[in-house]
Amino acid sequence: MAFLQSMPKSETIKLREKHVGSACQLFFRSSPLKIVRGIAQFMYDETGERYLDCINNVAHVGHCHPHVVEAGRNQMSLISTNNRYLHDELVILAKRLVKTMPESLSVCFFVNSGSEANDLALRLARVHTNKKDMITLDHAYHGHLTSMIDLSPYKLNLPGGPEKPEWVHVAPVPDVYRGKYTYPRDSQSEEELGNLYAREVGEICKKVKEAKGGVCAFIAESLQSCGGQIIPPDGYLKKVYEYVREANGVCIADEVQVGFGRSGTHMWAFQTQDVVPDIVTMGKPMGNGHPVAAVITTPEIAKSFADTGVEYFNTYGGNPVSCAIANAVLDVIEEERLMERAARVGNHLLSRCESLKHKHRLVGDVRGRGLFVGVELVTDKESRIPATAEAKHVVNRMREERILISRDGPDSNVLKFKPPMVFTTQDADRLVDTLDRVLSELEENTKSVQMKLEVLVSPIREDVGSGDLQLKSSIQQYVKAV
Amino acid sequence: MAFLQSMPKSETIKLREKHVGSACQLFFRSSPLKIVRGIAQFMYDETGERYLDCINNVAHVGHCHPHVVEAGRNQMSLISTNNRYLHDELVILAKRLVKTMPESLSVCFFVNSGSEANDLALRLARVHTNKKDMITLDHAYHGHLTSMIDLSPYKLNLPGGPEKPEWVHVAPVPDVYRGKYTYPRDSQSEEELGNLYAREVGEICKKVKEAKGGVCAFIAESLQSCGGQIIPPDGYLKKVYEYVREANGVCIADEVQVGFGRSGTHMWAFQTQDVVPDIVTMGKPMGNGHPVAAVITTPEIAKSFADTGVEYFNTYGGNPVSCAIANAVLDVIEEERLMERAARVGNHLLSRCESLKHKHRLVGDVRGRGLFVGVELVTDKESRIPATAEAKHVVNRMREERILISRDGPDSNVLKFKPPMVFTTQDADRLVDTLDRVLSELEENTKSVQMKLEVLVSPIREDVGSGDLQLKSSIQQYVKAV
Repeated sequence: MAFLQSMPKSETIKLREKHVGSACQLFFRSSPLKIVRGIAQFMYDETGERYLDCINNVAHVGHCHPHVVEAGRNQMSLISTNNRYLHDELVILAKRLVKTMPESLSVCFFVNSGSEANDLALRLARVHTNKKDMITLDHAYHGHLTSMIDLSPYKLNLPGGPEKPEWVHVAPVPDVYRGKYTYPRDSQSEEELGNLYAREVGEICKKVKEAKGGVCAFIAESLQSCGGQIIPPDGYLKKVYEYVREANGVCIADEVQVGFGRSGTHMWAFQTQDVVPDIVTMGKPMGNGHPVAAVITTPEIAKSFADTGVEYFNTYGGNPVSCAIANAVLDVIEEERLMERAARVGNHLLSRCESLKHKHRLVGDVRGRGLFVGVELVTDKESRIPATAEAKHVVNRMREERILISRDGPDSNVLKFKPPMVFTTQDADRLVDTLDRVLSELEENTKSVQMKLEVLVSPIREDVGSGDLQLKSSIQQYVKAV
Repeated sequence: MAFLQSMPKSETIKLREKHVGSACQLFFRSSPLKIVRGIAQFMYDETGERYLDCINNVAHVGHCHPHVVEAGRNQMSLISTNNRYLHDELVILAKRLVKTMPESLSVCFFVNSGSEANDLALRLARVHTNKKDMITLDHAYHGHLTSMIDLSPYKLNLPGGPEKPEWVHVAPVPDVYRGKYTYPRDSQSEEELGNLYAREVGEICKKVKEAKGGVCAFIAESLQSCGGQIIPPDGYLKKVYEYVREANGVCIADEVQVGFGRSGTHMWAFQTQDVVPDIVTMGKPMGNGHPVAAVITTPEIAKSFADTGVEYFNTYGGNPVSCAIANAVLDVIEEERLMERAARVGNHLLSRCESLKHKHRLVGDVRGRGLFVGVELVTDKESRIPATAEAKHVVNRMREERILISRDGPDSNVLKFKPPMVFTTQDADRLVDTLDRVLSELEENTKSVQMKLEVLVSPIREDVGSGDLQLKSSIQQYVKAV
């Protein structure tokens, strides 16, 4: 097909600007990457340049894993139809997923995205509890749908974001480094900090129960990703779930970003907190890039939903191709022991990042579990002021070094690592060695006024994008003139 | 893999009952089909039995079309990542889709399902108009998401359905056979009937504009599918769009079921009504079964959305595999001239069904456009009382004849045909010949009391499902006893 031939990058950019909504943002806006090939933990641009991918938690078992590709190809050539017909791949997937869960979670629904999964979780919770009020965490992100934006302070907090509905209650995120209660200021005990944060949820539950007879549900990522790679203190979720259940609510664990063994010690991140949710949602890594996601719940909640008599039909949900691919992803996780690898490589990565904390004045906090690691940059370790511009500079410099990382958190100052699970200790070493060098260079250079300005201006330049060339050149002249 | 081996059907059913939410209903519940293979317009069960598929509008270019499978396989083995990176398949798809649209519709957003597309359309309309009130048609279905159930009287009208929000306004569906205004009772002129129905939307617009300064949007399938294969009278949408725009609202055309040339004469069904929407949504046929969907809108609406500063990120939306597959579907539609075929075969199917109307007392109305055809069964042609039980019986009998059709509409009495677009005139003949025979047999047999009862009871038996064997056998004994 003539259409499948590649075109010059400038042409791709031109067409994208013309025909794709600009609310869909490119990574590295002023000079975006065109990625044409992926193998394991590496991505390649159109010139053949190779990048180490430290952020793509969707390509869970590695980009284009041959076993997954083969499963997709096979099933695509046999049949792909809707789940009103019986198919073995669907029931096998359901059985295998349920086997990884606590016993009470035994009923599956298959959908196409994490957003659809969280939306269905909301519908299940509403029907089961017959209540409306939801509790979510600050800075949380649960999806791009109307219903999920309502539950995502990550979007609601933006100046142009929609208004928070009155039935949504926001509890502080259990961030013990820069949150409401921090270590060691508010307590030296992790358990005590967990209690303090849980009590905030308890207060909401109490108030809502008094006013409206109960809450509908509490929803949280088991480890908060968009909020800045937050690892809740031990015991936090256990206490929270108690409060929520006292208020007749159900507990939803959003495992879309952090499930499928990423935490290293457990298949599901909620298990690191020793709790049993009522509803679990999963997505991104599930199909290694193929659009497939799921909701797993208890027979009781599934029954409440069926008892309404309203059929749930999701056209593509649970189609044989999606299920065959998800089964193949599970095969690889098992056969290549990727969970154990996440623990081993993740521990190595974490301890190497820890050493950066002692060496660099910019590194305020290092935290993580398995291959889910955050490095929080601050301008001052005492006041913990977020080093937002510096974080942006680091991400851009790392890209020049052919390493892809990103940043997140309410102040966009937390460097995020969540690589494909085939990441090696050598990759971790390369990542940390390079980061070490980039941080040193930055700390050294920002002693000069010009480089300080460069760092400050670079995010503005980035935001300007490739469109406004005049403004870009003015900024360049301005920086040179200083 | 041991897991990929097929298991006995009874085992598949057992696992499904145990691990898949029963709100996800099977087709032919008491004796569901296990489908393991699909080729063009045919599906095969595990015993090798072949079924003519007259309802799968998702397998648009035919089950497992080799060009589409090949495109998916190729791209899956190269790269599948998110749209924060540039990729040619995405911009080529955007350009090709835009080329099929009226000039003003030039900006695309890629998502994973028709539901996601309609949800995004709602978000776009809200941001652009800064209004909340929505107008939808009675019996409409726009998706399984929380936000879409609110706009779907098809679900809201059910006894267990949720309550209709106050900002949702329901206008009567322009069904000139059994709707609010019918032919020839209310008018003999199609234009006049279109005006009568449009005026109902106009009334809502006027009221909402007075109360709240304007409406947000009007959403409708260009040909209503779940409502019972409704073909709106000529001029209807033109008038409606005028009323909506006078009230500062935008017009959303839901082409999820009926787009991509199904209507035979136009690529998009809204074009049959000679209107230009502000937002168009598309899904099902777009990926021939692969989860891909899209929203296309004007640069002005896309700009309003981007201007909020809230990024729109859809993890799988517009990934290279989904786009390569959608491009391949467009290739096949063009190369095999499937739109022309839909017109040719659809006209043949429609005229053959017309002849059934004259022959059978049960056939009340026959309507359609291209390969989107409905046959409405009634117990009495004068009063137009829906023949619901008879329609169910026909669907089950046709399955015994290895022909898959379904039924829909508020009274589930409309036989639906929307086959893959590779359907032939021979297939249409087989479908109509068999339907003719089944209708004759039914009309003949229901002269006896026992068969009348059988027809009445069969839907109950079907609803009981395979689970409750005791109830099933009681019904059988009851029927025999009469």
